[in-house]
Order: sequence, then C-alpha cells, then structure tokens
Amino acid sequence: MLEREAILFANDAFYEAFRARDFEAMAAIWADSAPVACIHPGWEALHGREAVLRSWRAILSGDGAPPGPRCRAARVLPLGEDAAAVLCYEEIGRSLLAATNLFVREAGAWRLAHHQAGPTRLAPANLEEEAPPALQ
Amino acid sequence: MLEREAILFANDAFYEAFRARDFEAMAAIWADSAPVACIHPGWEALHGREAVLRSWRAILSGDGAPPGPRCRAARVLPLGEDAAAVLCYEEIGRSLLAATNLFVREAGAWRLAHHQAGPTRLAPANLEEEAPPALQ
Repeated sequence: MLEREAILFANDAFYEAFRARDFEAMAAIWADSAPVACIHPGWEALHGREAVLRSWRAILSGDGAPPGPRCRAARVLPLGEDAAAVLCYEEIGRSLLAATNLFVREAGAWRLAHHQAGPTRLAPANLEEEAPPALQ
Repeated sequence: MLEREAILFANDAFYEAFRARDFEAMAAIWADSAPVACIHPGWEALHGREAVLRSWRAILSGDGAPPGPRCRAARVLPLGEDAAAVLCYEEIGRSLLAATNLFVREAGAWRLAHHQAGPTRLAPANLEEEAPPALQ
C-alpha cells in the first residue's frame, strides 16, 4: 500500500514538473543509472538519458506555451518488487492522451524509466465513468 | 544476455500471434497472475485479463482483415530482475506505430503485462537509420 502511494507520488511529481515547465525538477525525476526511454506523442522512441532530457528541455522551454497536462485517473500496475507502471490520462484543454509511465526503484526512490503518451478516443467528460477505482 | 534474448523471443511471440490472428496463442502470451492492462491505438486503457483478452478476441477475429503488424527495431529496457519493457515499431503497410510492451517473469516465463501502441512521425523507410542497435 505504501509502495503504491510512493509510486503515485512519483507520478504526480512528474506531472507537477511538466505543468510547471521545471526542467531541473524533470531531470531529477528520471532515473540516473537505469536505462531510460521516452515516446512523446507522435515522436520516434528516444533512448538514453541524454536524448530524453534534451527532448524535455525543448518541450518545457517553449516561451508562452500553455501549462503541461493535468494527470487524471492514475492506476498502478505492479511489475515485481522494483518496477511499476502507472497508467493515466493527460488532460490538455478539452483533449486527453493515454499514458504509460514506468518507474524503477533506484537507491530507494522511484524514478521514471520510460514514458509513452498517445491519443485516446476517451473525452475528459467521460473519464470518471470509464476509469474505475485504482487497482489494489 | 540470455534474458534479453528470452524477452525478445516473448515479444516476437506476441507479434506472431497478432500476425497469425491466433487468439489462443495470444491468450497464452498474456500474464495469468500478474495484473495486466492494454492501451490499443486510440482506445481508452483496458485493465484486467478479462477486458484485455476480450479486446484481443475482437481485434483478431475480424473476417478478411489484413494480417497484424510486423515488429521492427525492438529494443529491451531492463526493469530489474523480473520485469522488462520492449520498445519497438509496428509496421502495417506503409505506416508505423510506436509500441511499449511490458513483460513480467511469471513461473519462469516472460509474459506480457501491458501493451501500448500509438502513432509515430517515423516512416518505415527511415526506420533503420533512426533506430540504433539494441541496448545491451
């Protein structure tokens, strides 16, 4: 239970850094020693911390850009002792993306190892009904 | 090394079942006791083996539908001892999807716990240059 909360907390921290366009916070959220990857909506897969953080620096530094997405209906999918996925929706204005965020335990903390987001047919207004309460 | 090959073998088996539209093989690939989820392109997230397999039964049973995608440029992202992600591209005709497949070790075998696929700006013709050799 505590682990599940710690994982959701790490997921929240990712979206807080995204919404605040805080690159330093974002860099601290991604794993340091574990291999990382990222598939931004519509992009090719990026592999390695350097390529992934370079993409986030570009995304977060857009002048006058709207705030990042709000995370909704997050659910933890446990993957053994030291890894977990969080599935959630990213609300941006009136549209949603469906996202998978992979976390690994690194020096006792949950750090992001992979993120993929893509379009979904679900509308924000239908989200509460469609997403049942979090697993365990 | 052997583990990486076993994970890629499980990933290949997923796409073989998909291409062959073989529901029984697909059902055997998904984890039994670990929680599972799936985000088909454009769909909402499906949670639980029953909902996930129901979606695959519908997808694989389309009469006269074209074969499933061909997997390209698969790369393993290790997530500790008992979990791993495979990032790859799904080639369908002249278009590509970018995919994340999560595997967990269940009774000694690598079984699929989550799949997300979505559009990518990458074209099949550009895939070889864009995807460097697999990580370790």
